[in-house]
Amino acid sequence: MKLLSSTLSYPSLLFLLSRMVVGYNNGLARTPQMGWNTWNRFGCDIDEELIVESAKVVAEKLRIYGYECYSVGWHDVSRDPNTGAPRCDPERFPNGIKATSEKVHALGLKVGIYSSAGRYTCGGRFGSLGYEEIDAKTYAEWGIDYLKYDNCYNEGQSGTPLISFDRYAKMSRALNATGRPILYSICNWGEDQPWNFATTIANSWRMSGDISDRFNDFDERCPCTDMLDCKLSGYHCAMARIIDFAAPLGQKAGPGQWNDLDMRKNGGMTFDEYVTHFSMWALLKSPLMMGHDLLNMSNETWTIITNTEIIAINQDPNGQPGTRLWKRPLPEGGDLQLWRGELVNSSFAVALVNTSPEEQVVDVSFEDVFRDLSKEWREATYTVYDLWEKDEKEEWGKNLGSMSGGMRGITVI
Amino acid sequence: MKLLSSTLSYPSLLFLLSRMVVGYNNGLARTPQMGWNTWNRFGCDIDEELIVESAKVVAEKLRIYGYECYSVGWHDVSRDPNTGAPRCDPERFPNGIKATSEKVHALGLKVGIYSSAGRYTCGGRFGSLGYEEIDAKTYAEWGIDYLKYDNCYNEGQSGTPLISFDRYAKMSRALNATGRPILYSICNWGEDQPWNFATTIANSWRMSGDISDRFNDFDERCPCTDMLDCKLSGYHCAMARIIDFAAPLGQKAGPGQWNDLDMRKNGGMTFDEYVTHFSMWALLKSPLMMGHDLLNMSNETWTIITNTEIIAINQDPNGQPGTRLWKRPLPEGGDLQLWRGELVNSSFAVALVNTSPEEQVVDVSFEDVFRDLSKEWREATYTVYDLWEKDEKEEWGKNLGSMSGGMRGITVI
Amino acid sequence: MKLLSSTLSYPSLLFLLSRMVVGYNNGLARTPQMGWNTWNRFGCDIDEELIVESAKVVAEKLRIYGYECYSVGWHDVSRDPNTGAPRCDPERFPNGIKATSEKVHALGLKVGIYSSAGRYTCGGRFGSLGYEEIDAKTYAEWGIDYLKYDNCYNEGQSGTPLISFDRYAKMSRALNATGRPILYSICNWGEDQPWNFATTIANSWRMSGDISDRFNDFDERCPCTDMLDCKLSGYHCAMARIIDFAAPLGQKAGPGQWNDLDMRKNGGMTFDEYVTHFSMWALLKSPLMMGHDLLNMSNETWTIITNTEIIAINQDPNGQPGTRLWKRPLPEGGDLQLWRGELVNSSFAVALVNTSPEEQVVDVSFEDVFRDLSKEWREATYTVYDLWEKDEKEEWGKNLGSMSGGMRGITVI
Amino acid sequence: MKLLSSTLSYPSLLFLLSRMVVGYNNGLARTPQMGWNTWNRFGCDIDEELIVESAKVVAEKLRIYGYECYSVGWHDVSRDPNTGAPRCDPERFPNGIKATSEKVHALGLKVGIYSSAGRYTCGGRFGSLGYEEIDAKTYAEWGIDYLKYDNCYNEGQSGTPLISFDRYAKMSRALNATGRPILYSICNWGEDQPWNFATTIANSWRMSGDISDRFNDFDERCPCTDMLDCKLSGYHCAMARIIDFAAPLGQKAGPGQWNDLDMRKNGGMTFDEYVTHFSMWALLKSPLMMGHDLLNMSNETWTIITNTEIIAINQDPNGQPGTRLWKRPLPEGGDLQLWRGELVNSSFAVALVNTSPEEQVVDVSFEDVFRDLSKEWREATYTVYDLWEKDEKEEWGKNLGSMSGGMRGITVI
Repeated sequence: MKLLSSTLSYPSLLFLLSRMVVGYNNGLARTPQMGWNTWNRFGCDIDEELIVESAKVVAEKLRIYGYECYSVGWHDVSRDPNTGAPRCDPERFPNGIKATSEKVHALGLKVGIYSSAGRYTCGGRFGSLGYEEIDAKTYAEWGIDYLKYDNCYNEGQSGTPLISFDRYAKMSRALNATGRPILYSICNWGEDQPWNFATTIANSWRMSGDISDRFNDFDERCPCTDMLDCKLSGYHCAMARIIDFAAPLGQKAGPGQWNDLDMRKNGGMTFDEYVTHFSMWALLKSPLMMGHDLLNMSNETWTIITNTEIIAINQDPNGQPGTRLWKRPLPEGGDLQLWRGELVNSSFAVALVNTSPEEQVVDVSFEDVFRDLSKEWREATYTVYDLWEKDEKEEWGKNLGSMSGGMRGITVI
Repeated sequence: MKLLSSTLSYPSLLFLLSRMVVGYNNGLARTPQMGWNTWNRFGCDIDEELIVESAKVVAEKLRIYGYECYSVGWHDVSRDPNTGAPRCDPERFPNGIKATSEKVHALGLKVGIYSSAGRYTCGGRFGSLGYEEIDAKTYAEWGIDYLKYDNCYNEGQSGTPLISFDRYAKMSRALNATGRPILYSICNWGEDQPWNFATTIANSWRMSGDISDRFNDFDERCPCTDMLDCKLSGYHCAMARIIDFAAPLGQKAGPGQWNDLDMRKNGGMTFDEYVTHFSMWALLKSPLMMGHDLLNMSNETWTIITNTEIIAINQDPNGQPGTRLWKRPLPEGGDLQLWRGELVNSSFAVALVNTSPEEQVVDVSFEDVFRDLSKEWREATYTVYDLWEKDEKEEWGKNLGSMSGGMRGITVI
Repeated sequence: MKLLSSTLSYPSLLFLLSRMVVGYNNGLARTPQMGWNTWNRFGCDIDEELIVESAKVVAEKLRIYGYECYSVGWHDVSRDPNTGAPRCDPERFPNGIKATSEKVHALGLKVGIYSSAGRYTCGGRFGSLGYEEIDAKTYAEWGIDYLKYDNCYNEGQSGTPLISFDRYAKMSRALNATGRPILYSICNWGEDQPWNFATTIANSWRMSGDISDRFNDFDERCPCTDMLDCKLSGYHCAMARIIDFAAPLGQKAGPGQWNDLDMRKNGGMTFDEYVTHFSMWALLKSPLMMGHDLLNMSNETWTIITNTEIIAINQDPNGQPGTRLWKRPLPEGGDLQLWRGELVNSSFAVALVNTSPEEQVVDVSFEDVFRDLSKEWREATYTVYDLWEKDEKEEWGKNLGSMSGGMRGITVI
Repeated sequence: MKLLSSTLSYPSLLFLLSRMVVGYNNGLARTPQMGWNTWNRFGCDIDEELIVESAKVVAEKLRIYGYECYSVGWHDVSRDPNTGAPRCDPERFPNGIKATSEKVHALGLKVGIYSSAGRYTCGGRFGSLGYEEIDAKTYAEWGIDYLKYDNCYNEGQSGTPLISFDRYAKMSRALNATGRPILYSICNWGEDQPWNFATTIANSWRMSGDISDRFNDFDERCPCTDMLDCKLSGYHCAMARIIDFAAPLGQKAGPGQWNDLDMRKNGGMTFDEYVTHFSMWALLKSPLMMGHDLLNMSNETWTIITNTEIIAINQDPNGQPGTRLWKRPLPEGGDLQLWRGELVNSSFAVALVNTSPEEQVVDVSFEDVFRDLSKEWREATYTVYDLWEKDEKEEWGKNLGSMSGGMRGITVI
């Protein structure tokens, strides 16, 4: 992925490109949240020690890169029989969730929790449907800063945007009523078009089924070909399929309201594939939630998740997700894709994505990148900076020919 | 586009062709509204001076062609904390909207305003959802004649025709209750089939996502292939795609109730492409709302938007949108399309549209144009008049062979 | 179309084939209704004289063939300002509708009327939405026997089966409350799957957009490719497209509850095409409502609509619509289709439909016709009788080879 | 179908594969129910004698294989005019249903009954819609253990998951209120995604239209290509089409909540085809309800339905339906499919399904079977046991090459 910078002025670009975005404004997630979630690696098998030890890793090594949200994970087995309030597992959290979250806060991090807008959570614990107020109140008392709110066992409360909105808005209002700013991350797997209905009630929404740790397989458990009206979001969705699903949705996101492409996976793909994964999540302004074991992190993982330039794309104040300019099928399977994102300071991020099993050497024309922009942009000359190679290569403009590149996954142009 | 006139009598044609249309009848828009809208060119950056200066251009130069609606643009930042009524920006409209609209009325024009059936407008200002009565009352007091009513931030109130109907009917009833005739132009981007649900509550409805200033690109931000049940109308919809979207919908429009194909764009297409744009908007009986800067208008633009014959097609009292008779893909991309519209006085408008990148020289058979009409029409002889070349060319009938034509965009037959 | 008769016993056939059908049971339409409707030919331009003169034709010439329903047509301009009851046009019906219907009753026929479950009828007159009780009561007082109930201007009351059911059930209950048996024929163009929701409230339901007088054209005004979830039923649907639409729906019909394929057209197709039209409407157990001018009927029309064997297929007491066994595209466009219907007395109606522009000479295998039936039927020998040629040709069975046939439209096998 | 066993430990497999499942928990159907249903063979023509005689066959011969649910069949003609309670036919059940069920209980079996969440049952008898409480109470009094609850004549109460949930939840609550554990088997043919909405209210849900006794025909009466949003589930769905429909749905099932693929058919397919039928129903964790005449059972049928290893796959405590890893179309029609199911004790069931008319001899690569699992599983060596041939053949692992097989229907790999 490359950064193109021009000397043109910023306002006229924004005027052409942006659809102004307001919406849910609890002051949070003006740029996509960054953090770590215990689920992918540990499931329900967490306790205070794991939480605190991992938080130390985040605080010591990752906070300087922007990661600050932190998952306490999946709440626990029972409700108080008198009050109905959620209770944690005293064996796993002997000092209570509040004590754990104080320790995490002391490290300068934020604390997340998980529940579901259903009768049970997806992990089979009790859900919050019908308990929104007591649960929100308890979270606030526990010092929670972040709620991931899932969709399992929703008892038929989906099928129109209004039904889904009502269900998720209940928790939104309950969180706001606590007075504590709590980032609200909903996870209804893209059902009923959350990019429409959730913009005024949530900071982010998952827009597809769960990601798998695969690059580009079709998996029948993730059966839809797009997410615009998918009736079975499923899971085991390969990374490149989620990119496809997200491609038309960027127009609905912006500061305080993000498409969530699911957590970063770790272990089943190649380095180049993870480069694509991280780069595209950044360009699409997805929350960047890590899913791997922080206590056992490879150098490759480290290199990827601490690329400051890529993180800067994700955290760019402009807050406009990238647009896919074209997608071209390849005879050997997969496709080539050209993406462009508009950044502050008259800059663009441009990505060429290759989802085929073969290396592709292609030219990208200047005209393709700027075709739908105004004359000033189509005729400017740009400085090109490679965000992974980290070197400045050349100038590029209408009369400077095309650029070539080729590798599996994302590539410079 | 050509006008075919015959000497056959008018009633029997109508009997065969028309589906009688009643519906919303506030006395307005018996033919599609014509006017100017500030948004495409100026966004939120408008003030009294711009409004009045532009209105003068409309009044002096364009009113004689039929343009009379006029946009005051996007209403403003705050509501009165006591009454809840909308308030304008005192810096931009120091004399109030009412004073501005009086100046526009004095020029013989009508005044439009914008809001959204949501919590916010698409421009991020407050919306009218829940404030329908106070807003309609205020508009009437301000002397507003026209409301464009958008769809952003609707809090999940879409997904079935009934939910959308209820939301938009609220404002319709509020406008009617003011006693002032206010043209009601809804803009829910074709969601939930407004051509069905809006016929008794609105004068026009947008039937797709926002138009872009491109002829025929596929843009992933406008992802649907038709509008019959599109779940993400989007924006950046190329002009030819909107023609495709509108093709089956003409049957639902008629006097007082129109499919709105979005505003006329300006700047990104060629002269021939704009000829197609304007001609097809006319033939499909779309409102003709100009979107360009009236104070800086090219000769080409002037030539197009003041073609009186094309405007006459749009304003024909019959009020029947044209029908696409066939659409044939071309090997070089794009397609050829044959259209026919029924006019008063036993006349027809016929258009051949070429959306390919190449000039096409084709014959159009007489039989194709009249195939689904009754014997009288299939056997008549017609006088052919070219609405852009403006000359009468020849007679055409069953035994007079086929006619040929070819150019990018719309062409004579 | 041929009738195949075997000597096998009847009950075991029915046990295998039938899905028992109960449902709306007002004692009417135990076989599909047969009659005449003024709309296709005369629109709103009807009066007492036309009605009575046409009724005489039906009574004298057609009643013996089973035609007995009869349309008074489209009700009239105004409601009584005091009672809200519908009033007829005193110029067209100077003696009132009741007097007209008495004259029609005196001829031994039944009388139909038309309204819409909307604010207006499709003809632009007042609709019955919100007036179900007073309208039903008035119809009963007028001696009406049959209500065709349309869908225009329904104010968004569609989009789920439940919304549509509620709207149409209101009139059903109102009709039943009058105590007069009134055949209830709903016409919501197949929206929201009336073959599911209407079985307990109506005698028949239209299952698609309006038919055109064309054999097999695609017309963009009838844009859907099937009716299972069509969001724009439209009109100008060619006859062969309606056959396609109806093919999967026969399973939902039966005595008292029929798929209505729309009225018989007249004038735009060839004799062979009309033979197909009438035969397939009969086999699919559609109501047989004539739409042509009874006072000016050609010999060809007469031959078709009085074919007693075809009518017997339609009125067969078994009441099971035919099934399409296969549909095979042809290189010249169109397709071949094989249909089978189960009749009383161990008989079958079998039809081979050709929708291509060319004559097709094909063999039909015995096995194809009986493939999904039990062994007894697959191994029986049948007497074959041609319902248009009206001669008995031969025996046919598993060991008697295949049969051939070929003509445009329907053909023997 | 083969069983692959490894020596790897069980927990880490489950952690990777399982989506924990909770949901409807009335203590029943922790593994899929097994039993017999009278409908396919006898329809409404049942009486006490047939029920009891057939039950004896089940008790004597089949109970040891796990079959224990047993159908009393379709309830009867009338409701008590005073109480509204259902009454049985005194001629068919002269001693009452309760006496019949006591006889069946005495044989050690469970007793099922049938009704519909509609105004009528599909067999034309009265339905339970609006009578949920009195019907559930009566069933409990009769000693009923199992309710199959159908969808006919539902009066428009479908179209969103919430509408369907509400209708089916009424009976669920009524059954629970009786205090008697009654297995609740809903049958709404997959409408509105019961795999989402029914998980907390029912033990199983039919997920498609009715099965036919055909291997792989397309039948227009079963018109949908998938079940994710099918608007006409229909009937006459060939067995292989139901496998297609079920393929993405396994993720939603688990202990206490199963996808019901419909009853086992008998008579229209070959032995190999029935082997596929039974094997795949087992692998997909469908309830195994026999539909044939127990008093006249062929040796082939006996061989199939008493294969203890296949039944063990179905009843495996892990309760995870198999996943389709790939499906490849074949030039002669039909396709090859590779399936894998995870079992307890580090074992897998693997199936290669051939739906073409030809024998296929193919190699299956080790990598294909384990591709999406973790490294331990991808590198293990497995003992392979053939569940139909019942012999242990060989070891298979990453370095042991591919395995071949071929026959119509399911085959070993």
